[in-house]
Amino acid sequence: TSIKNTTPKMALFVFFVVYTAAGAKIFQILEHPAEVQAQEEAGATLLEQRAIFMQSLTNISVHTVSEYQLRVSAELRQYESAVEDAVGAGVSPLDPHLPHYHWNYIESVFFASTVITTIGYGNMAPVTTWGRVFCILFGFVGIPVTLTVIADLGTIFANLVSTMSKHLGTLTRNCAPVKKLQALQFAHGGSRGMVVLGAVGALLLYISVGGSIFILWEDWTFFEAFYFCFITMTTIGLGDLVPERTEFMLVCTLYILIGLALTSTIIELVRRQYAESWQQMKELSGRLGEL
Amino acid sequence: TSIKNTTPKMALFVFFVVYTAAGAKIFQILEHPAEVQAQEEAGATLLEQRAIFMQSLTNISVHTVSEYQLRVSAELRQYESAVEDAVGAGVSPLDPHLPHYHWNYIESVFFASTVITTIGYGNMAPVTTWGRVFCILFGFVGIPVTLTVIADLGTIFANLVSTMSKHLGTLTRNCAPVKKLQALQFAHGGSRGMVVLGAVGALLLYISVGGSIFILWEDWTFFEAFYFCFITMTTIGLGDLVPERTEFMLVCTLYILIGLALTSTIIELVRRQYAESWQQMKELSGRLGEL
Ligand SMILES: [K+]
Ligand SMILES: [K+]
Repeated sequence: TSIKNTTPKMALFVFFVVYTAAGAKIFQILEHPAEVQAQEEAGATLLEQRAIFMQSLTNISVHTVSEYQLRVSAELRQYESAVEDAVGAGVSPLDPHLPHYHWNYIESVFFASTVITTIGYGNMAPVTTWGRVFCILFGFVGIPVTLTVIADLGTIFANLVSTMSKHLGTLTRNCAPVKKLQALQFAHGGSRGMVVLGAVGALLLYISVGGSIFILWEDWTFFEAFYFCFITMTTIGLGDLVPERTEFMLVCTLYILIGLALTSTIIELVRRQYAESWQQMKELSGRLGEL
Repeated sequence: TSIKNTTPKMALFVFFVVYTAAGAKIFQILEHPAEVQAQEEAGATLLEQRAIFMQSLTNISVHTVSEYQLRVSAELRQYESAVEDAVGAGVSPLDPHLPHYHWNYIESVFFASTVITTIGYGNMAPVTTWGRVFCILFGFVGIPVTLTVIADLGTIFANLVSTMSKHLGTLTRNCAPVKKLQALQFAHGGSRGMVVLGAVGALLLYISVGGSIFILWEDWTFFEAFYFCFITMTTIGLGDLVPERTEFMLVCTLYILIGLALTSTIIELVRRQYAESWQQMKELSGRLGEL
């Protein structure tokens, strides 16, 4: 019976992996040609404007230096506008023909996984209408699937945590401060607070370990890596810090997925804790009303 | 008893509003001075580099036009690099002293609400260490609170939907196509599919109405507005399209909050539908195993 229970979960997990891999390919097919075209056009426009500016420098016929500078300043303004547009399109004026393509396959997988986990960093985003239509459809089906996969992972972790806390309880039975803490916890309504504390501790540990690993290959301080992990695991995904190294992106995706399962377990636990507190307050106000 | 049940929910909602308003103020206090300083520095550097470039034009002493162009090109490269940095810091070379500040109070409220709803567009993000520390603490407490508020709103909507579907059932009792559809639904395992269909319809309607309103003041096509609403309601929040008009930002926040409640109801319904399908498949495979 254990295998019977695990099979549909495994099947869903396999579907999730295939779905992400296939979706990434479709994103790439829809978006890569558009980014190539946009960057080529932006690069060509930039070089054209630069040539026009350089030409104008030797064509200006004026009598004084201040007149000359005034004319050059006006011509430069045109070119500055072109540089601003190019930078906005992802083209550097220092190397207009060096492409900065985002929609390679690995980064497309990373993008697809940030859509269905609802992290959505936004460092990459579809710009074509068909890319956006597909993004809506892909998210519509993928988000519930991913939530289920994450919830299944969360159940596994919850079981692990409760097993570990039992072992920990056996180990610390003779430790006075722990006993005092446990007595305090029981006075405030049971061991759920203890579970929340343990889960939060596990998450902090997980984020800290992740942060220590990220600083090995990303150009981040430890706090920046910690901040990135927190913003990711909560699915806020601001995108102000995003992993840059493509070769570690799949490991990164896996790390995020496990972290999300951990976080969703904790958010659920904390939410229940709040709900319980409200319930207690409600009962208290009810009793006060009866007096 | 009805008032007793509503009071803690109302209290939590009031806490949520006060928490967001106060958090926004703290974000503003921590981040606004930093953005002022960064933009002033970037603007000053840009003007300085521009002056150096202009100066160099009249100081170059060469004999041929091609030599002159070569030297100018090298000088221009320095300035292009400065323009690229300035654009990255949010300063336009066309108007280096026109500030583009994000951390006014209204936009800070908008940012705070996108943190605790986990949307996280990322068009604004804290850059100071204290701003990021506060962001972590603010999210840690605020996200579970917001999830609870959204779930409470979701319950209200779920009740509304079921009441409406009852009325709709009475109205369409004599309509043949609806009867056929209902028969089909019942054959496939009850009325939950009908509820999901109704909820999805309600969400599409809500997003379409929202889209129609957004195009009145944002520079978007209807599809862009629809895409923005979908990306927002799913909390993906890519941030490729973000509302620009500050004066409508509070209405926008309220629209998003109601939409999130609607979406969370739907995601939960769809997830249950999947779970039910898996359960059926599991039972089927169990029965097949017994044969
Ligand atoms: K997000
Ligand atoms: K986001």
